[in-house]
Amino acid sequence: MPHSTRRAALRATLRDRELDALLVTNLLNVRYLTGFTGSNAALLVHADSDDASVFCTDGRYLTQAAAQVPDLERVIDRPCDAALAGRAAKAGTRRLGYESHHVTVDGLDTLVDAADGVELARASGLVERLRLVKDDAEVEALRMACAAADRALAGLVEHGGLRPGRTEKDIARELESRMLDHGASGPAFESIVAAGAHSAVPHHRPTDAAVRDGDLVKLDFGALVDGYHSDMTRTLVVGRAADWQRDLYHLVATSQAAGRAALEVGTRVSDVDAAARGVIDEAGYGDQFLHGLGHGVGLQIHEAPALSKAGDGTLLPGMAVTVEPGVYLAGRGGVRIEDTLVVREGAPELLTLTTKELVVV
Amino acid sequence: MPHSTRRAALRATLRDRELDALLVTNLLNVRYLTGFTGSNAALLVHADSDDASVFCTDGRYLTQAAAQVPDLERVIDRPCDAALAGRAAKAGTRRLGYESHHVTVDGLDTLVDAADGVELARASGLVERLRLVKDDAEVEALRMACAAADRALAGLVEHGGLRPGRTEKDIARELESRMLDHGASGPAFESIVAAGAHSAVPHHRPTDAAVRDGDLVKLDFGALVDGYHSDMTRTLVVGRAADWQRDLYHLVATSQAAGRAALEVGTRVSDVDAAARGVIDEAGYGDQFLHGLGHGVGLQIHEAPALSKAGDGTLLPGMAVTVEPGVYLAGRGGVRIEDTLVVREGAPELLTLTTKELVVV
Repeated sequence: MPHSTRRAALRATLRDRELDALLVTNLLNVRYLTGFTGSNAALLVHADSDDASVFCTDGRYLTQAAAQVPDLERVIDRPCDAALAGRAAKAGTRRLGYESHHVTVDGLDTLVDAADGVELARASGLVERLRLVKDDAEVEALRMACAAADRALAGLVEHGGLRPGRTEKDIARELESRMLDHGASGPAFESIVAAGAHSAVPHHRPTDAAVRDGDLVKLDFGALVDGYHSDMTRTLVVGRAADWQRDLYHLVATSQAAGRAALEVGTRVSDVDAAARGVIDEAGYGDQFLHGLGHGVGLQIHEAPALSKAGDGTLLPGMAVTVEPGVYLAGRGGVRIEDTLVVREGAPELLTLTTKELVVV
Repeated sequence: MPHSTRRAALRATLRDRELDALLVTNLLNVRYLTGFTGSNAALLVHADSDDASVFCTDGRYLTQAAAQVPDLERVIDRPCDAALAGRAAKAGTRRLGYESHHVTVDGLDTLVDAADGVELARASGLVERLRLVKDDAEVEALRMACAAADRALAGLVEHGGLRPGRTEKDIARELESRMLDHGASGPAFESIVAAGAHSAVPHHRPTDAAVRDGDLVKLDFGALVDGYHSDMTRTLVVGRAADWQRDLYHLVATSQAAGRAALEVGTRVSDVDAAARGVIDEAGYGDQFLHGLGHGVGLQIHEAPALSKAGDGTLLPGMAVTVEPGVYLAGRGGVRIEDTLVVREGAPELLTLTTKELVVV
């Protein structure tokens, strides 16, 4: 059972830090450690044993919790954080870690009241550190999420979904509908469909503007499968590609390939950014590449590590990241090309398989 | 301009509390006060004047911020909270409020570092208190969101969307697609479609189970319009209603009407819960009504006030709330009936207009 394996890894961390237990209040961390998918829960992980760990949710999820978290003691109470802090106090916990990157200043007061007499210790990002490296079940969910996006885009293009006259909103909706057809539970984030000059806006929201002949069309979208997010950007041309569009595309594709090639175990994340950014800087477009190169992806659409100038740390096998350079020429158009990949010993595993050749539809 | 009116109301609150400024980091509060819809921003509201207030977002939203927040000074920086805390320090702010219900324990360290020498004062829920009472623009968005849900359900029923053999997932998808047809930007939350015994699970996730003749089908769903959420539940019967289903429906409908009738200005929110709950308690089903009666709704699907036993405070004109009693008979089926309404002097304004008569399809 992967969830109990994840909890065992966390317990080892707790013992290293001399914590008797950790109160997990970040709902995604609770999901990671238990499989629970409801909207309200907390988890008390005991350093010594799963038998002493306790899961809490509210009455709405009584049945669901029994089905999804059969292997832990379950408490139905509200609010969950205070209920479990109280349980820790009763169980004689001396040193209780809490997620200080998630618990609010006011929320800490509640915990202090509920865990009367227990020493509350900051324990920031312990579960997130485990989540950095994806296990097989996670990579499989990411693979399925990426496949749903690949198939949706293939279907869209094949059925003329990008023909002139279609609005950005129509295209976004068709992409999202096709992802559902291919097994997604929903879109991973609000899809970006940006035609013509809109493609120069990095995070453009789809409008009623129609695609026109000669437009660059930038599609940045992803699917959600089992809580895992895929993230892919492709930029196509409608009708016939102008020379400046081909040149811009070639530049970004070269940068993106350099970024992917730099995805090696042990490489500093800031060096991956630099590898891709250098190509664009050298061509004189550094000021038109306004964002980081990429980000981790998993239960969140944006998670650690950040592949950016300021990013910290090195790549580990099993990290899932995006590589997404872009160049945006205000008023004319922009190109971004993005893949989701898993870092491996040797070459990274590419999860988004749609071609990166320039497609003219 | 409604956003500047909202900021003016906040400034009056700040002066009452002897704060020179408030650092707004809750993104929904930033949206409420500025109209900005991006995914990263913060706002420094100065107690004296909008001219001294500063909005911050990152480079992705340069163009969007200029369009959506033309009336405030804008800073492009990252992270926004530290950037604005630094600005406050430079501007000679003495007492800076921060959203202690939103800023994390670790996040406060960042603010203390960035706002060197400034007194940081807890200021919890100030914007949320303004958001309790909806202004005309907000009610109009809620009205449109409720109308999209009403029309989606009408279309679904009219076109045989609930016929035996259709799966819960199919029905949820059709409802969501129809809401988009009627102007929604998306579903307000993960739609609940629960057929047969599943209807006894208050927060059931749609499955591949098919609707069968004689089933109760519970539909709890809503639309998102301009960031505002509608929330409606209807429970229908497929084929022919059994006596126990009619009786259960009648009980919940009577309770729901009692709850709506109790929605009067000045009434304690716990008394609204009691009015509806009393009907179900008296019939002997109190233990099968496991959740609160309702909740505020607006930029969040669940916001203050909570209409529950433990809820605090009284109703004010302009509050938007749901009234949603339910009775759940495990293994057999459940009924929930939910409206979104606005509290008014006199009778509340009903926003979800779909009939509450028992519909047999």
